[in-house]
Amino acid sequence: MPEIPSKPILLSERSHQTRDLAISFLMQQGVENPDCLSLAAGLVDPLTLPVQDALQSASEVLSTEESGRKALQYGTTQGSLELRQLLLKHFESLEGKSASELGIDETQLVATTGSQQLLSLVCETLIDPGDICLVAGPTYFVFAGNLTGVGARTVTIPADENGMQPAALDAALEQIAERQELHRVKLIYVVSYYDNPSGVCVSTERRQQIVEIANKWSREHRILVLEDAAYRELQYDGEVHPSVWSFDETRESVIYTQTFSKTFSPGIRVGFGVLPKELVGPICDRKGNEDFGSANFNQHLVANALSTGRYHEHLQKVRQGYQLKRDAMLAAAEEYFSDIEGVSWVHPHGGLYVWMSLPKEISTGFQSDLFQAAVKNGVMYVPGELCYAGAIADRPKHQMRLSYGVLTEEGIREGMKRLASAVKSMDN
Amino acid sequence: MPEIPSKPILLSERSHQTRDLAISFLMQQGVENPDCLSLAAGLVDPLTLPVQDALQSASEVLSTEESGRKALQYGTTQGSLELRQLLLKHFESLEGKSASELGIDETQLVATTGSQQLLSLVCETLIDPGDICLVAGPTYFVFAGNLTGVGARTVTIPADENGMQPAALDAALEQIAERQELHRVKLIYVVSYYDNPSGVCVSTERRQQIVEIANKWSREHRILVLEDAAYRELQYDGEVHPSVWSFDETRESVIYTQTFSKTFSPGIRVGFGVLPKELVGPICDRKGNEDFGSANFNQHLVANALSTGRYHEHLQKVRQGYQLKRDAMLAAAEEYFSDIEGVSWVHPHGGLYVWMSLPKEISTGFQSDLFQAAVKNGVMYVPGELCYAGAIADRPKHQMRLSYGVLTEEGIREGMKRLASAVKSMDN
Repeated sequence: MPEIPSKPILLSERSHQTRDLAISFLMQQGVENPDCLSLAAGLVDPLTLPVQDALQSASEVLSTEESGRKALQYGTTQGSLELRQLLLKHFESLEGKSASELGIDETQLVATTGSQQLLSLVCETLIDPGDICLVAGPTYFVFAGNLTGVGARTVTIPADENGMQPAALDAALEQIAERQELHRVKLIYVVSYYDNPSGVCVSTERRQQIVEIANKWSREHRILVLEDAAYRELQYDGEVHPSVWSFDETRESVIYTQTFSKTFSPGIRVGFGVLPKELVGPICDRKGNEDFGSANFNQHLVANALSTGRYHEHLQKVRQGYQLKRDAMLAAAEEYFSDIEGVSWVHPHGGLYVWMSLPKEISTGFQSDLFQAAVKNGVMYVPGELCYAGAIADRPKHQMRLSYGVLTEEGIREGMKRLASAVKSMDN
Repeated sequence: MPEIPSKPILLSERSHQTRDLAISFLMQQGVENPDCLSLAAGLVDPLTLPVQDALQSASEVLSTEESGRKALQYGTTQGSLELRQLLLKHFESLEGKSASELGIDETQLVATTGSQQLLSLVCETLIDPGDICLVAGPTYFVFAGNLTGVGARTVTIPADENGMQPAALDAALEQIAERQELHRVKLIYVVSYYDNPSGVCVSTERRQQIVEIANKWSREHRILVLEDAAYRELQYDGEVHPSVWSFDETRESVIYTQTFSKTFSPGIRVGFGVLPKELVGPICDRKGNEDFGSANFNQHLVANALSTGRYHEHLQKVRQGYQLKRDAMLAAAEEYFSDIEGVSWVHPHGGLYVWMSLPKEISTGFQSDLFQAAVKNGVMYVPGELCYAGAIADRPKHQMRLSYGVLTEEGIREGMKRLASAVKSMDN
């Protein structure tokens, strides 16, 4: 039989829009340069991973045939009722109010494969090609990829150390309205606590303003705010901020999402959303098509960790560990970068990242002299330009996301020293 | 402050195409009629769930800080390398050939949240609105929902007790070619082993023919075959069939998917795909957007169960249990239905389902007299019309999917008795 000549596969339009995450390049660099200290990796600190707690929870969930079988059987698309009830209690404690005061119940909660899946589901459920989503600059780059994947147009709103600037948000919406495109605006995306990548926390005043602006411009249809609170519980100091969600008195305008990946285990990968009532059906229908429910066993593990108090004990330890590493990175930044002209960085009160700006003439991208010099010095970072939505040409090129997630305090110090040396070598 | 009047949410086009799974109605019926025996539920038998095995695997994976942390950390989007290597070995043993003889390696495998996620990813990656997918009639109804969700047009190919009819498949493609629409044909979807819903196994001869027909009509682009082998390992007797995939000598035309949900645990929810090389990138990019990797912990659990041989021991028990229940359902069908004129059913050699056809004048849908009579008698089934793609009006209305998954042998017998009595009451 003659060999059949291979014909090309025709991919979908969406597939062409879906780009490889830049993360892959970094991971490859990591593999090729095993001695490199990674200030790039967004992984959590292996020392924070709850091996004993997970074993204890697994043992309890699987301790009897009855409870074990419940966890090993199919669950529902929306997620385990027991978990959703516990998530609601957890959310009540974060918000400092009872569910009845908050005006929600567990039917508005959905369990997902990390908060990432909720972000993706929201895009699928709301956005048609050409629809508009407003995001901060910089913003979470994986979500920027989701927006590209569904063909959204993004409008970048400048952010400062207090987060997205409400006046700029309002002005952008006004411009869109003037262009008669308000009907295409679906979402305002806000990483509200210790942003990935910038580490900034949106100020309380701005949280309220963002909701008011969304409502103000919801003329014919509802412009939703998508609040990504992935880092909410990784707070080390500073002011405690109410959620953006809490300012939505109607409970109909803000989608809230959070995850246990950073505070417990990304390998268990349980996240959740708190949804406007009207969106529960469409989001669950979409999720039904994608996987008809995240792994039920994992939901039982997290429910067990929550109900036994094991999660909260673990969280204290995680916070203490990251706080020390945050301090180590800020101290190293002070020590090695404060004498470099034109360099500044954000002092985060939580999360995993320090955002550093270099003088504008120093590019930080993968192809830049600095990135090459850094790798040669044995250190890696995430180029800031990856952390913006929209056209590459329009993005700032002189910034870096520095993570204190995986390295030890000593590794952070050494990594920052190597990085500073690479930056200083750019003068020549 | 005056209450802000609520404006409508504008959902995406896709969201409007994505329908609630009919499963939800059945689940609600189940809740409202707790004494009903369910021949409808597609759940696995709780008695087959590997509580002790899962505990043993969890204990081993979490036995040291080092191995535990590996499992609780983020994995990669494509899935754990260790798991993919074990999956490849597993696939080699199913195919009865070494990987080098098969001409593939672990880079072509991807781990997913059940095989359902792979089905969904394939649709997203390949299908634009208006593209064509050929499916058997009947076919797996969740996949039919995926096709609707991406705006695909479906063409139903008649199936008999040997599966999809190749002559009809060839004729349908010829018609499509005559309409100048061949370029819109992306996929031929085949549930190759003990089909959900029909229980039939595609004959070996037809497996080869399906691949040949796909190649024959791949004139300008490649028409891919999507082989859903979810029930492959749930074989109780009868001939052992090579996969459809095995007939694709190019290894470029068939996408293969399988899951551990039925044979191990749906709550752990690990499935996998074997992909043409060219599709690995696009599928992983899409998966990166959706969840950047299924739960890593679960992948380590399944890897442990595979490498210790625990999975295979469990599988033997699962098969024995289901075989007895399959026998019980066929015996009860014989006992209660053989005297009803015009009733016939498929005798499956594996899987979880018996597909029964009633006389054409007896409708089986949710609104039918029969469905009402069955629920009143205390039994439920899945109406056959839900198990077809395409327009409701064109679907046969006189069939039922009967599952022996969850009930005991006694329950199956009693359920079949009640169902026969409901069918007989239709004469009046």
